Amino acid sequence: MVELIENADGFRYVVVEKQIMEQIHDGTLNPGDKLPSLRKLSSRLHVGLATVNQAYLELERKGVVEARPRSGFYVRSTFRKMPEPPCRQHSEPLVPTKATRGELIRTVLKGVGRKDILPFGVATIGQELLPIKALNRMLTTVIRETPLAAAQYESIEGNFELRRQIAMHVIEEGVTASPEEIIITSGCQEALNIALRALTRPGDIVLITVPAYYCFLHLLENLGLRAVEISSCPESGINPDDVRRAVSMNDVKVCIFNPNFNNPDGSLTPDEAKRDIVAALAEKNIPLIEDEVYADIHFGPLRPLSFRTFDRKGLVIQCSSFSKTLAPGYRVGWIMPGRFFNKIFHVKATTNICTATPTQMAVAEYLRAGLYRRHLKQLRAGIEEQMRHMQYLVSRYFPEDTKVTHPLGGAVLWLELDAKVDSVDYFYRALEQGIGVAPGVVFSSQDKFANYIRLNCGHAVSQDLEKGIQVLGKLAGTLAFSAK
Amino acid sequence: MVELIENADGFRYVVVEKQIMEQIHDGTLNPGDKLPSLRKLSSRLHVGLATVNQAYLELERKGVVEARPRSGFYVRSTFRKMPEPPCRQHSEPLVPTKATRGELIRTVLKGVGRKDILPFGVATIGQELLPIKALNRMLTTVIRETPLAAAQYESIEGNFELRRQIAMHVIEEGVTASPEEIIITSGCQEALNIALRALTRPGDIVLITVPAYYCFLHLLENLGLRAVEISSCPESGINPDDVRRAVSMNDVKVCIFNPNFNNPDGSLTPDEAKRDIVAALAEKNIPLIEDEVYADIHFGPLRPLSFRTFDRKGLVIQCSSFSKTLAPGYRVGWIMPGRFFNKIFHVKATTNICTATPTQMAVAEYLRAGLYRRHLKQLRAGIEEQMRHMQYLVSRYFPEDTKVTHPLGGAVLWLELDAKVDSVDYFYRALEQGIGVAPGVVFSSQDKFANYIRLNCGHAVSQDLEKGIQVLGKLAGTLAFSAK
Repeated sequence: MVELIENADGFRYVVVEKQIMEQIHDGTLNPGDKLPSLRKLSSRLHVGLATVNQAYLELERKGVVEARPRSGFYVRSTFRKMPEPPCRQHSEPLVPTKATRGELIRTVLKGVGRKDILPFGVATIGQELLPIKALNRMLTTVIRETPLAAAQYESIEGNFELRRQIAMHVIEEGVTASPEEIIITSGCQEALNIALRALTRPGDIVLITVPAYYCFLHLLENLGLRAVEISSCPESGINPDDVRRAVSMNDVKVCIFNPNFNNPDGSLTPDEAKRDIVAALAEKNIPLIEDEVYADIHFGPLRPLSFRTFDRKGLVIQCSSFSKTLAPGYRVGWIMPGRFFNKIFHVKATTNICTATPTQMAVAEYLRAGLYRRHLKQLRAGIEEQMRHMQYLVSRYFPEDTKVTHPLGGAVLWLELDAKVDSVDYFYRALEQGIGVAPGVVFSSQDKFANYIRLNCGHAVSQDLEKGIQVLGKLAGTLAFSAK
Repeated sequence: MVELIENADGFRYVVVEKQIMEQIHDGTLNPGDKLPSLRKLSSRLHVGLATVNQAYLELERKGVVEARPRSGFYVRSTFRKMPEPPCRQHSEPLVPTKATRGELIRTVLKGVGRKDILPFGVATIGQELLPIKALNRMLTTVIRETPLAAAQYESIEGNFELRRQIAMHVIEEGVTASPEEIIITSGCQEALNIALRALTRPGDIVLITVPAYYCFLHLLENLGLRAVEISSCPESGINPDDVRRAVSMNDVKVCIFNPNFNNPDGSLTPDEAKRDIVAALAEKNIPLIEDEVYADIHFGPLRPLSFRTFDRKGLVIQCSSFSKTLAPGYRVGWIMPGRFFNKIFHVKATTNICTATPTQMAVAEYLRAGLYRRHLKQLRAGIEEQMRHMQYLVSRYFPEDTKVTHPLGGAVLWLELDAKVDSVDYFYRALEQGIGVAPGVVFSSQDKFANYIRLNCGHAVSQDLEKGIQVLGKLAGTLAFSAK
């Protein structure tokens, strides 16, 4: 920065920059707005073109504006980077506990599909980002061209073409899988459910990282399992040493980890740590269930690797779905059960025989037509843009001491509010105003994260949604102030 | 009969009747063939019109031929009534056992959707009997008219209109249900699965009747449950005294019964016995899961009542689906959890969040259009016709000592073969010849029914299928003869 300040125009560009920032602050300029052209601003402010250019470049460097080729500069969605929530190493001993947040989770989940609640609470993706028209066209084609097949049972493992397409898709993770190693499930939740049911009995201990996707915890509670919780850090994901310590102290039956853009803290466990964790668990023959549902929504150029990449013993069970990338209502996901194929096959067969045929066939057709890769590219860009915009709105409307994550993928933000804010109270008050959020306490079975909330960034930020964030920000301030 | 023999034409009609029977026996006349007109046969045999008429009426009375209005007499599918398998009161004590037939069941289930295996093994319904065209049209309409909704998550409970339609449909059973008491599932198997998981823990005792639908047993095995088995009688279904005795001797956590056209023996438990069983279980507060998946396929004019009709305490959990009546591949079923709504709701939510949206909407539309009732009428007639035809073929091709059920509904026949026939051996030998059957042993966890097989009657009896029955009949004879 120093060298910029000391260039030909001296400090004058800083003045220009500040002025732009103020206009963004007071709402004269909004995210997505185009900045005045260099020429126009130069003449209006009586400064050189180079000065304005310098200011714009600096704003770009800070992530406040962005240059669009052959168009000019635009206000980016984020301009004030709030700090990330720090990694909280909880002092509780590593003892198994029972999850008991089922009722609250149920209330949170009621937001699914509700049109009268702003969709920050449930991790859905906006319809405008999903290729619903193309998918529905595939569905229509499938039932027109193979009307009888579409109405019949699929094999228990699922549609073969779909499994073949998934096998080709996951090659990107650095793994080779054959269609015969894949079982189609009714979404990722079912994949997790049948994996856990195949590998555990009530009372068994499961190792998870917290904050953890609350449906994990709901599932553990439902299956009568006990959780040992280690910390997930927003910046660095899962620490292999924590895993080693936890499995040495407890009779862990299975782990469930979300290494790529963990829901809710968006953390990415580095590939080197993944290798290390897989090795540590392989030593003790502990199966590892990995939730990969967000892995395809990476903002960087490369898809992060999965645990499965490093698996040599068939101990890693990968679960994923198309619910975040194509259509949640189609209920199409998959599981790669590794060495547990037979067990998991039987659990799937006794759960619902097979997954619905028409939607499986439609997704298979969509993938076979080669449309998925291009769509994912657009989807990633769209979600990243929405997330930046949400970060901007949080920085604008939430109290200054709020901390918010800077994920490199996924579609949710994780906010640490003032320590005095009770997220359950916050949740109900927001709901009263028609706004869904996910309260921090549901992301652990031990009442950690009492002052955290998760915000879904899956939807384009309309005026209504912006107003919602404004209300949420104000509410955070009010509760911090009113709490004794 | 006596008064018929003593009528004006004396005994002459018996000669005519016998001649027709012989022609059916030797294949001159086949099921579905039209008998000669009264006038033609009368002139050919030199007997009076009244004599031929008398013979035809007698054949009709015996179920060998049928009169079709304004058309004449036709050979019915069945003409030689083989005896029903008697009710076997097994001498084993009422002790819980673990089901262990998973691998064999898996092999049987591999017949699902296989085009190279004749479909007697798996209880599917032929596509020509299902309104697949109309359903697919509904599906196309739904995704054209509400493209976005079809791609989104449904609520956990399922599509409201579908639940409303189901509530109206079940009124026929003599129960009133509101949409709020219904949860949509991915087929009846899922309904049974989540009901059992909500109400039991591994090691618990479940009371079932045998022969029992093998997917019950597969499910029990998978969930680590133990079964206490009482007998289902082909003629009279479940005996309330057996239920009383079983629950007094064992700590039964839950019962699963199939009162209306039990799969595989087709038995119908009388409504009075249903009332009695519900009362006996209510005394001990034992929940009763009833599988109603065949109840709509009744050959008599009225739908039999369900256990739920007599339930006053919310202890009856009804499970059913559209897999036998509309389209199995749509995976749409339902559960009415009674007083266990909350528990079962949570298990459903953690299993797969919700059932696929497009197929739910399509079925809802189909029902809303008022098409279901008329379709069921045709379906019942079609399946009854196929079952009569299958009974006829069994009587024609199987050894004389074979016993076969005479169900009043459902779509399967249950055959008792010579005591020396090992049904597992039989199963594999049939499979080698491309014919699926379900071997008797999978219908109990105690190796009962070793010499029984189940035949599916869901498909129109083509020449290929008839040849298949011929092979099966011969195989039954061979194995009875060759066994030591």
